[in-house]
Amino acid sequence: MGRCVYTGIHEPEHPSADADGFRRDVLDLVRELGPTVVRYPGGNFVSSYRWEDGVGPVDERPVRLELAWRAIEPNTVGLDEFAGWAQRAGLEPMMAVNLGTRGIQEACDVLEYANHPSGTYWSDLRIANGAKEPHGIKLWCLGNELDGPWQVGRKTPDEYGRLAAETAKAMRLVDPSVELVAVGSSHSQMPTFGTWEDRVLEHTYEHVDYVSMHAYYEELVGDLGTFLATAVDMDAFIDAVISTSDAVGARLRQRKRLKVAFDEWNVWYQRRFVGAPNLDWQYARPLIEDRFNVADAVVVGSFLVTLLNHAERLTVACQAQLVNVIAPIMTEPGGRAWRQTIFHPFAQASRLARGQVLRVEAHGPTYATAAYGEVPLLHATATHDPATGEVVVLAVNRGTEEPLPLEVALHGFGPLVLAEHSVLADDDPYAVNTADDPDRVVPREGRDARVLDGRLEALLPPVSWNVLRLAPPPRS
Amino acid sequence: MGRCVYTGIHEPEHPSADADGFRRDVLDLVRELGPTVVRYPGGNFVSSYRWEDGVGPVDERPVRLELAWRAIEPNTVGLDEFAGWAQRAGLEPMMAVNLGTRGIQEACDVLEYANHPSGTYWSDLRIANGAKEPHGIKLWCLGNELDGPWQVGRKTPDEYGRLAAETAKAMRLVDPSVELVAVGSSHSQMPTFGTWEDRVLEHTYEHVDYVSMHAYYEELVGDLGTFLATAVDMDAFIDAVISTSDAVGARLRQRKRLKVAFDEWNVWYQRRFVGAPNLDWQYARPLIEDRFNVADAVVVGSFLVTLLNHAERLTVACQAQLVNVIAPIMTEPGGRAWRQTIFHPFAQASRLARGQVLRVEAHGPTYATAAYGEVPLLHATATHDPATGEVVVLAVNRGTEEPLPLEVALHGFGPLVLAEHSVLADDDPYAVNTADDPDRVVPREGRDARVLDGRLEALLPPVSWNVLRLAPPPRS
Amino acid sequence: MGRCVYTGIHEPEHPSADADGFRRDVLDLVRELGPTVVRYPGGNFVSSYRWEDGVGPVDERPVRLELAWRAIEPNTVGLDEFAGWAQRAGLEPMMAVNLGTRGIQEACDVLEYANHPSGTYWSDLRIANGAKEPHGIKLWCLGNELDGPWQVGRKTPDEYGRLAAETAKAMRLVDPSVELVAVGSSHSQMPTFGTWEDRVLEHTYEHVDYVSMHAYYEELVGDLGTFLATAVDMDAFIDAVISTSDAVGARLRQRKRLKVAFDEWNVWYQRRFVGAPNLDWQYARPLIEDRFNVADAVVVGSFLVTLLNHAERLTVACQAQLVNVIAPIMTEPGGRAWRQTIFHPFAQASRLARGQVLRVEAHGPTYATAAYGEVPLLHATATHDPATGEVVVLAVNRGTEEPLPLEVALHGFGPLVLAEHSVLADDDPYAVNTADDPDRVVPREGRDARVLDGRLEALLPPVSWNVLRLAPPPRS
Repeated sequence: MGRCVYTGIHEPEHPSADADGFRRDVLDLVRELGPTVVRYPGGNFVSSYRWEDGVGPVDERPVRLELAWRAIEPNTVGLDEFAGWAQRAGLEPMMAVNLGTRGIQEACDVLEYANHPSGTYWSDLRIANGAKEPHGIKLWCLGNELDGPWQVGRKTPDEYGRLAAETAKAMRLVDPSVELVAVGSSHSQMPTFGTWEDRVLEHTYEHVDYVSMHAYYEELVGDLGTFLATAVDMDAFIDAVISTSDAVGARLRQRKRLKVAFDEWNVWYQRRFVGAPNLDWQYARPLIEDRFNVADAVVVGSFLVTLLNHAERLTVACQAQLVNVIAPIMTEPGGRAWRQTIFHPFAQASRLARGQVLRVEAHGPTYATAAYGEVPLLHATATHDPATGEVVVLAVNRGTEEPLPLEVALHGFGPLVLAEHSVLADDDPYAVNTADDPDRVVPREGRDARVLDGRLEALLPPVSWNVLRLAPPPRS
Repeated sequence: MGRCVYTGIHEPEHPSADADGFRRDVLDLVRELGPTVVRYPGGNFVSSYRWEDGVGPVDERPVRLELAWRAIEPNTVGLDEFAGWAQRAGLEPMMAVNLGTRGIQEACDVLEYANHPSGTYWSDLRIANGAKEPHGIKLWCLGNELDGPWQVGRKTPDEYGRLAAETAKAMRLVDPSVELVAVGSSHSQMPTFGTWEDRVLEHTYEHVDYVSMHAYYEELVGDLGTFLATAVDMDAFIDAVISTSDAVGARLRQRKRLKVAFDEWNVWYQRRFVGAPNLDWQYARPLIEDRFNVADAVVVGSFLVTLLNHAERLTVACQAQLVNVIAPIMTEPGGRAWRQTIFHPFAQASRLARGQVLRVEAHGPTYATAAYGEVPLLHATATHDPATGEVVVLAVNRGTEEPLPLEVALHGFGPLVLAEHSVLADDDPYAVNTADDPDRVVPREGRDARVLDGRLEALLPPVSWNVLRLAPPPRS
Repeated sequence: MGRCVYTGIHEPEHPSADADGFRRDVLDLVRELGPTVVRYPGGNFVSSYRWEDGVGPVDERPVRLELAWRAIEPNTVGLDEFAGWAQRAGLEPMMAVNLGTRGIQEACDVLEYANHPSGTYWSDLRIANGAKEPHGIKLWCLGNELDGPWQVGRKTPDEYGRLAAETAKAMRLVDPSVELVAVGSSHSQMPTFGTWEDRVLEHTYEHVDYVSMHAYYEELVGDLGTFLATAVDMDAFIDAVISTSDAVGARLRQRKRLKVAFDEWNVWYQRRFVGAPNLDWQYARPLIEDRFNVADAVVVGSFLVTLLNHAERLTVACQAQLVNVIAPIMTEPGGRAWRQTIFHPFAQASRLARGQVLRVEAHGPTYATAAYGEVPLLHATATHDPATGEVVVLAVNRGTEEPLPLEVALHGFGPLVLAEHSVLADDDPYAVNTADDPDRVVPREGRDARVLDGRLEALLPPVSWNVLRLAPPPRS
C-alpha cells in the first residue's frame, strides 16, 4: 500500500537500485533496523489480492484496482521478488493468504508455489519463473482483519473460523511444516473483541499455531500523558488474548497452547487519515506518511517493553509498516532515505535485547491519566544474554515534567559495568526528523547513570527512551 | 431468455438490422414505448451467467447451457453490445451481477470492466474490445430472486444478506458512484416474504440504495373482476416493503431510507407455462409469448397508477420484459414487429406522466371481488408538470358492465382546457393485437369529457384505460 | 489413490497393456469379479480434485499435489480414459463431484462435459478430446464424506446440506436424467451420525435420489468372534439410515422415498495405516495394500448377505476399492495380477445372486461376542431367479470351532436339485493369497449338502462362506 513497496523498497529508477530494482539505501536501513520477520503482501491489501498476478514475466502481469487503499497495483513486485529481497535483507517472510474473496484452493496453490520443491504444476512454474529453490516460507497468516467492517469479504466469527480451519487443514496437507496464524481482533476496542477470539479459536484451535493481534495508538489532542501510557492498553490486550485462547484450549481438552502473533502494531494518527473510500485511484500514492516525533518514539519504546515482557507467548511481532507508510524508514522518490524517530528504539531493541527477558517489577511514582487511571511513570524491562553475560535495561520515563530516578538491583549476574548508555529525548517532545534534518532526533550518549554496589542508578529525562547496557568488566 | 434478445431486439439477418445486428424496427418501437431503464442480462438468467462469456470477439465466445430457461446461449450479445444498444435507444442500463454461482470477485470484475475508465486489466480489455469510453452503468442489482427455490444458487436470507453486503461493499470500492439494489421477495405470496426483507436488510441496509420487488398477475378462470382489481395487491405489497425497510432502518439507527426498485412486474399467464425444467435445450425458443388482451392493458394501466402513486420512494420500475417474452413488443423472426395491447398505457404514461404526482383520493362506487373484498371501481392518479402547467389524469374503470362517471376538481392550477382525451377499451375485453391485425386494440380519441367550472368531467367506459391531458388555454 | 489406477488398472509399460495403457490382465479380473458400478474419481481424493486437469492432451495436463493421500497425481488417467475403460469393462461409472473446495459451477461443468451431446463449450471440448458420444453417466455423488474431519473442505451438516441441495438443483437443470447421491455418514460411529443425515436430508431430500453410507471393519487383536459378527453393525447402520431418511421424508410431506448407496464398504485394517498426513509425496505409492485372509473373505461374504437383504432400498453398493488399495485384485508393477481371498465371495454373489432376494430368517444357535452380544452363528440369504427357476443360498458360518448344520425349506419353487455347492474355508482362517501362491484360498467344491424332501441340508465348516445353487431338474 501507499509507497511502502513502490518508491519505498523498490524503485528501479533510483540511483541506488540493484539489478532487481530494489533500493540499496533502503535495504541498508532495513538491515540496520533489524526486524526478523516481515509480513507480506499486506494487511487489508491481501483480502482482494490474487497472488498469481504477481508472478511470471513482469510485463505480462495485470494492472489491478487495489480495493483496500484504492491504488493502481501494477504487480511489478510479487511473491518471487519479495522473497528474494527478504533473503538479501536477512528477513523471514510472513505470508498472508486471501480469505476475503478467495478460499482453500488458492491458499494451497500459493503455498505449493512458494514451498514445494519441484515436479508439480505450481512448483515447476516457480522454477520457470527463475526461483529454482523453494522459498521455504514458514509463517502463514490465514487472512487479515476479517473481523473489520472495512475488510473486503469480512466474515462473522463462525464464517471465518470455519473457513480458516478448513484452509489450515488443507495447507498443512500441502506442507506440514508451516506455522499458521488465525486472525484475532483488529484492535482491543472492536465490538466483537473476545467473542471473536472465542468463536474463531473454537473452530481453528487444533489447526493453528498462532492467534494474531493488531493495535494502533495515537495522541489525542492535548493529552500527551494518556498517550505515553498506552502500553497499558496493549499490555491488557495481550493478556486478554492469551487468556481467551487458553480458555478455549482448556474447553477443547487440547494440551497445546497457542502463541501470539502481534503482527501489526505502531503509532498511527488515524484521525488524520481521510479514509480509503475517499481516495482517488493512484499508483504509489503518498499515503498515511505520518511524521513521528519524540513522544511517538518513546511510546514505541514502551510498546517494545510490553512486547518483550510477553516474549514467552508472543513470539512474532511486526511493526506496521516498514517504509513510508506509518514507518520507521522514509524515502523520497528518486532521492533520499532517512530514519524517523521511531526507528531508533526498534533498532536498539533489535540489536541489544538478546537472550532471556527479565521481568522488571516497577516500584515508584505514578501519574494520573484520563484513560488508564494511575499509571507508573517508569516502564521498563531487561534482558540477560547468558552467552555474553550482558544485561540490557530498556526504560521509558512517561513523565512530561521531571527526570525520573531509576534504580535496578543487579544481583546474580556477577560483576557488571556500564558499557553503553543511550537516551532518546528532546526539549521538544514534538520534534521530528526530516529529509533535510534527518538526525534531529537520535539516541545520544547518556551521562546520568552509574553502577554502584551491584545497583544500577540512572536519571531518566522526561519523555525519554533509555537503553543501558551492562557488561562483565573487561579482563585485565 | 426466449426471444427477447435473439430475434427480438437482435437479429442480424433481419432486413431492418443495423451494422451491429440490432433490429431498427424494434428499436423504433422501444423508443416509442419510452422506458427509461432496461434491466440486463436478465432475471433468473443471471444466476448462472458468466459475464465474460459475452465480451471479446464474438466468434470466440463460448456457447453455454443457459440453466434457468434451458436455452442454448451463443453469447452473441453481451455487455458491450447491450450497452451500445441501450445508448442508441436512450435507455439507462440496470445491470445484475451473478450471486447464484458467483461472488464478490466476479462482481467487482464486471463493474471494473463496465465503468473504470482505463489503465487496468479489465478496463483495458473493454477498450481493446472496442468500447473506448466506460459504459458508466449506475444501477446494479445484487443478484436476482435469490429467495426463490427455482433460482440457481438460491440462498437463505442470512446467506444472501451476508453475500450481498460484502459484494456491495467491494463494488463501492471499485466505483463509489454506483447505486445498488438488494434482492427483495420474488412476489408477495412467497412464504418468506417480510422475513426475507427483514433479515436481508439487517445485513445490507447500510450498503445498498434500493430493495427490489417482483410481481406478476394473471386472470384466473372466470374472475375478470378480481383480475381488474389486482393493483390492490401490488399497492399493499409496495407499502409492506417500504414499511419493513423503514423498520429495519430505524432499528439500525440509520437515517437514510431505501428506495424501492420494482424491477419486474407485468401480467403473466404463468399457469399456462410448462415450467423451465420441462423444456428441451433450444436456441431462441419462443417462450412465454403471452398475447395480451384489452383487460390486460387496463390492468397494466392500473399498475402504472399504483406505481406513480408511490413515485416518491419507488423510483425504478421495470415492466418485464421488453420484447416477445410477456412483452409489449412482439416480433416475427425475419418479419414484422407490432405493439401488444399493454404497449399503449405504458407508452402514454411514459410520454405524458411528467412532473409531480398528485395523489388522487377516489370517492365513488365500489364492487365486490373474490380476492380483495370491496374495491373502488375507479383507480386513478394525476400528474402536474410545473414546466408546462399541464395536468394529466390517468384513470381506470374496473367495472365490467357500466360506464363510470369521473369528476376531478382542478383547483390551484390556473385555467385548464382539455387538450387530449384518449380511451383504451373494447366491446370485447379479450380482444388482442396480432401481426395481421396489429391495431385491433389501440387508444382512441375519447368524446365523453369536458372541463367545466374548474372541474373535469368524463365518462369512463367499462374495462377502460383513460388518459386526459389538461393544458393551459393557448394564448390568444 | 495409491496404486488403484496407476500400476493398478492403468500401466502403459505393462506387457498386457492395451493401446490406451490399461492392463488387460486386470481388466479380465475385473470382468470376472463382476461389479456393475465403479465409483470415480475417488473418495477423499475428489474433495480437492479439479476434473478439468484430467481431460485434454495428456502431456499438457498439470501434475498436482493430491492432498488426501499425499500423492503426486500426474492426471494421466482422467474422465475420458476412465469412462472408456468402464465401458470396455461393462461397468456403469458413478461419478463424484468436488464439493470440498468447489461448488455449483464446476459440478455443472463436468456434467455438461460428460453428458451433453454437443454444441456447447464443454461438450464440444469432450468431442475435440476424442469422445464423440456423451458418456451418459447417470449416477453422481454430491461430494464425499464431508462429515469427516479428515476431509478437505469438510462441512457442517447445514453447510453441506445447503451446498448439496443447490448443486443438485443446478445439475438437474443441466441433465434431468441424472441420479444424485447425498453424502451420508462416513461410518456408524461418527459423532454426528444420525443428526448429519437428518439435517442434510432436510435440505436435500427433494433434490436427491440416494443417501450414501460408508463402512470399514477390521479384526481387533484377538477377537475373531466379534469380527465375524460385524455384519450386525452394518445391518443396524443400514436400517438406521433408512429410518432416518424416511422420517425426514415424512416430516417434509414428501411421498418419494430415497434409496441407499452404500458406496464404500470393505474390510480395512485401518489401525495398521500410518495416516495420510504422515506420508511423503510420491507417485503411485503402495498404499493400504492390505492382504486379506480367509476370515476377511467370510466377513465380506457376510456383508454381501446383509446388502442383499436390504436390496429393496439399497440399490447401489461399492466395495472399496477395486485394485491394490484394500482391494480384491492385486498387481505387481510390470508383473503379475491375482485374486485376494475377498475376490471370491464378491465374484460369486455377482455371478449367481440374481432375481429376487428371499429374506432368510435364521433359527439356530448363537454365540457371545464382545461387541454385539449374542449373535446367530448362521448368516444367510437366498435369491430366486424367476427366469431360470434357480434358487441360490449364500451362507456364512461365523463359528470358529464347529461345523454348522444348515436346513432350508424349499417350498413353492417346484422341484429343485443341487446344481453347485461351493465352500470357502481353510484350516487356517488367516491364510492369504500371494503373487506366488495366488490360489491358496479359493472356493472349493462342497460335499456335505443334499436336497431331500424339499429341504436343503448342508454342513457349513467353521469360518466359512458357502454358495449353494439349486436348479430345476434337467428335463429328461
